[in-house]
Amino acid sequence: MAYLNDNYLKLQAGYLFPEIARRVTQFTENNPEAAQKLIRCGIGDVTEPLPQAVLDALHKAVDEMGSRESFRGYGPEQGYGFLREAIAKNDFRDRGIEIADDEIFVSDGAKCDSANFLDVLGHNNKIALMDPVYPVYLDTNVMVGHTGPAGESGRYSGLVYLDCTAENGFVPAIPEEKVDVVYLCYPNNPTGTVASLEQLTKWVDYAKANNAIILYDAAYEAYISEDNVPRSIFEIPGAKSCAVEFRSFSKNGGFTGTRCAYTVVPKELKAQTAEGEWKELHALWNRRMSTKFNGVSYPIQRAAEALYSEEGKAQVAALVEHYMGNAKILREAATAAGLTVFGGVNAPYIWVRCPEGVSSWDAFDKMLNEANVVITPGSGFGSAGEGYFRISAFNNRENAEEVARRIQDLKW
Amino acid sequence: MAYLNDNYLKLQAGYLFPEIARRVTQFTENNPEAAQKLIRCGIGDVTEPLPQAVLDALHKAVDEMGSRESFRGYGPEQGYGFLREAIAKNDFRDRGIEIADDEIFVSDGAKCDSANFLDVLGHNNKIALMDPVYPVYLDTNVMVGHTGPAGESGRYSGLVYLDCTAENGFVPAIPEEKVDVVYLCYPNNPTGTVASLEQLTKWVDYAKANNAIILYDAAYEAYISEDNVPRSIFEIPGAKSCAVEFRSFSKNGGFTGTRCAYTVVPKELKAQTAEGEWKELHALWNRRMSTKFNGVSYPIQRAAEALYSEEGKAQVAALVEHYMGNAKILREAATAAGLTVFGGVNAPYIWVRCPEGVSSWDAFDKMLNEANVVITPGSGFGSAGEGYFRISAFNNRENAEEVARRIQDLKW
Repeated sequence: MAYLNDNYLKLQAGYLFPEIARRVTQFTENNPEAAQKLIRCGIGDVTEPLPQAVLDALHKAVDEMGSRESFRGYGPEQGYGFLREAIAKNDFRDRGIEIADDEIFVSDGAKCDSANFLDVLGHNNKIALMDPVYPVYLDTNVMVGHTGPAGESGRYSGLVYLDCTAENGFVPAIPEEKVDVVYLCYPNNPTGTVASLEQLTKWVDYAKANNAIILYDAAYEAYISEDNVPRSIFEIPGAKSCAVEFRSFSKNGGFTGTRCAYTVVPKELKAQTAEGEWKELHALWNRRMSTKFNGVSYPIQRAAEALYSEEGKAQVAALVEHYMGNAKILREAATAAGLTVFGGVNAPYIWVRCPEGVSSWDAFDKMLNEANVVITPGSGFGSAGEGYFRISAFNNRENAEEVARRIQDLKW
Repeated sequence: MAYLNDNYLKLQAGYLFPEIARRVTQFTENNPEAAQKLIRCGIGDVTEPLPQAVLDALHKAVDEMGSRESFRGYGPEQGYGFLREAIAKNDFRDRGIEIADDEIFVSDGAKCDSANFLDVLGHNNKIALMDPVYPVYLDTNVMVGHTGPAGESGRYSGLVYLDCTAENGFVPAIPEEKVDVVYLCYPNNPTGTVASLEQLTKWVDYAKANNAIILYDAAYEAYISEDNVPRSIFEIPGAKSCAVEFRSFSKNGGFTGTRCAYTVVPKELKAQTAEGEWKELHALWNRRMSTKFNGVSYPIQRAAEALYSEEGKAQVAALVEHYMGNAKILREAATAAGLTVFGGVNAPYIWVRCPEGVSSWDAFDKMLNEANVVITPGSGFGSAGEGYFRISAFNNRENAEEVARRIQDLKW
């Protein structure tokens, strides 16, 4: 009599983006003409082609796979040395952060990594996450049984929700109750805001004082444009003993469909056994990846490596500049339309407060039906996101400019 | 006070292949000259370059990623329609097995899928696995807490081990105690043997009678050369209501370093909630993949699709013929050397019985030190594998012939 994992049945309504897709499909079917004009600023998916350095590296690696002498079969589950070294050197050591090559674990996505990291943690941790939040952190905790059922507000019992509001600048206050694991994400998805060195220092100090672990998602690091904003949790002294960092090539190199990311697990980071012994999580994560993963495709790892060449870096900078140019246009348009706007300066997301009395899904439907623009309803990211919506700046310039015009024309 | 997953600490000695790698490294350091002659027949890794149809498809897809019009960002988490259709049509419908496109879930590896499938199953299932066994099934069950600690034999309490011996032709008898989930793998890794239609029918009948689920690993299906051997569990009437099947492009298309695989989850397959309600596992697996995975790289999916073109099929057939030619040479050499040999006819593995009184690791060390050939010790796959070793036929012809000579020269 085979049993299923009952925890899946606690999940609500379906993951946010499939629900958006459903409404958009319905709109398209009902309004075939307006659908021609539809512009998507919903899911945070890049639109520009891969950088030339990446294309060249891919072609070269494909050719290598075509000859017996240079063919590559199974690679190291943790990633090839050439890529781990390029990452550790460029993203950390050259910026004064001591991270060893073998503290880098290459994967096929930060989404996967942030979900899979729960594998090596115990079920007895008190988990805290931001609200609004990237739904994957929440859903994966539900799926492994870290929660009770959802209540009326949509919040699950058993978790600690950290409200991120305009009042606290979308950086949550340290919780009053003690937590063991906390997800932080900066530059933030969905709000597009950042945390300062002082704010992150408070969190690291909290984690150290309580032997807690910070799961830090820095997938949008490349979009930081201001000087005083930390690019990595490991800029904070002591973070190596209390944090893991998730990074991605999706948003800097345009790899959303190419798939490569990495996770930094410092060897200093320890967690406790049920009997109170402290062990390195690095060893557990290494075992997890060796046993449940077979490494990223060789040509794709060469593609990621190319992002660190001089040519690749310049092309990434151009991509980021392009999307942040869109962000500026969209920010200014929303502001000019009388809306209150956050984010969009160090991240490709603009977080817009809905006009008084308009809910997130109301705003979604209005933007879809009247402006023919797909955005993401803030409430889809959690109850504290109610009354907001997210505009993604991932688009070509023409579309961004057209969306800006439609936002200014829209009467609320 | 962050807790780790204590179950990881129950794992023994490290995953088999890292342990082999450790011994080989030690040998190489101590015997630099003999190391020059080393031939690896250990891990089941392909050696021949990717088929030309795959290389062409990869180059084309990379070019598509270089222009805005044809660029692909996030794809469907379940795999692109073009690939799901090619798989369902070629591997199933054209062979008279009704599998719908959306019952195919494309992934980056059958290792990952067989490990991840536990996500959607309850922790209250009684799990059975073959012995000897592909270590991933076992280790992932330990990691999620389905076992107690390992005993002296290396077996973990809480699991049902199904002995596969020369006496039962390496197809286990139906267990006397009732089990809920059973892993079967044919063509078998590590023994290289197959199960007949009659044998698999008994298992399907057992699963149906007990509402159990068969997790069927058919990663080596392409190597079946005899007519009467089932290529899929779904050839057995009724299997769609009690089985999942894992397939891979690693061994047919040479994708061990390219990474693409798939899992078939029929919609008829149901499992029970704790309260006794029956639900489709297809919906749970779909949710699992949507939430914890972001799809396989677009160029890699195009590469997999190319394996189903006429050109691709012919090139796969040539690859399979090549490796099976090696298998024949190795089988004959081991037989001529007086060893008792199994497998190698419908699978690229030869399962050799060690001479009387020689243990698996003794045989490993002897083959390494005296023949300078890396094989895999049978005991690494479970206690019923003790007294055997596995020779992989994945090699170039020259190496296979040289290994054959060394096997014949070796004095036990």
